[in-house]
Amino acid sequence: MATTFADTPEPPYVAVIFTSKRTEGDNGYMAMAESMNELASKQQGFLGIESASEDIGITVSYWVDQAAARAWKEVAAHRVAQRQGREVWYQDYRVRIATVDRDYTMTSSLFGGQHGTATPRNATGSDNRRQ
Amino acid sequence: MATTFADTPEPPYVAVIFTSKRTEGDNGYMAMAESMNELASKQQGFLGIESASEDIGITVSYWVDQAAARAWKEVAAHRVAQRQGREVWYQDYRVRIATVDRDYTMTSSLFGGQHGTATPRNATGSDNRRQ
Repeated sequence: MATTFADTPEPPYVAVIFTSKRTEGDNGYMAMAESMNELASKQQGFLGIESASEDIGITVSYWVDQAAARAWKEVAAHRVAQRQGREVWYQDYRVRIATVDRDYTMTSSLFGGQHGTATPRNATGSDNRRQ
Repeated sequence: MATTFADTPEPPYVAVIFTSKRTEGDNGYMAMAESMNELASKQQGFLGIESASEDIGITVSYWVDQAAARAWKEVAAHRVAQRQGREVWYQDYRVRIATVDRDYTMTSSLFGGQHGTATPRNATGSDNRRQ
């Protein structure tokens, strides 16, 4: 599973937020999840993935545009369907497809720099806005 | 910390994706996090929050619009600054502000229904699209 930050470019790009409540037991889930992450990283337009699991699991994958996110959704759904595993692995889940408008990092927030810019801009922690 | 799904309305709405890498030890983090979640839930325009922590932490808060998300960012940054805790709690973090365009649930995906709709639409797992 992904354990680091996704190294995304300047906005706009697309985030697919997948939140899930697992069933009890592994039932092949970990192997499937790793295989799906590997598959995602080979898709066109893939930018990165971030994942954490506790009471619920949250996986955010990042894509260059809506078309790439949609293509991934179809590939993923098809793959899961092939393995007939959805109801085995998940009690429930939510998927939200979102356009990232702006982002900032701890460093840019500390120094007020924009995404990808090390140059300080002001002292108020301005972020990388698109609109 | 949040352990369930956020009960968000039909898109569009705004997601603030906060991914973080913690420092070692608690250093008052858990108390701060709980207090911040409680504070968030009292903000105008708050829709819900989802959180999971493993190698990295991912917290997604949902807001009615960009203005509500921005207001929360300012409140949160101010609160953290007051406590001078940012560098104590975090090695690094990323914040991404995104507009959710469409979403679907396990149930809507199974039956092809739209967000908030129990009625089956088709068998291909269509989702709740805005564009």
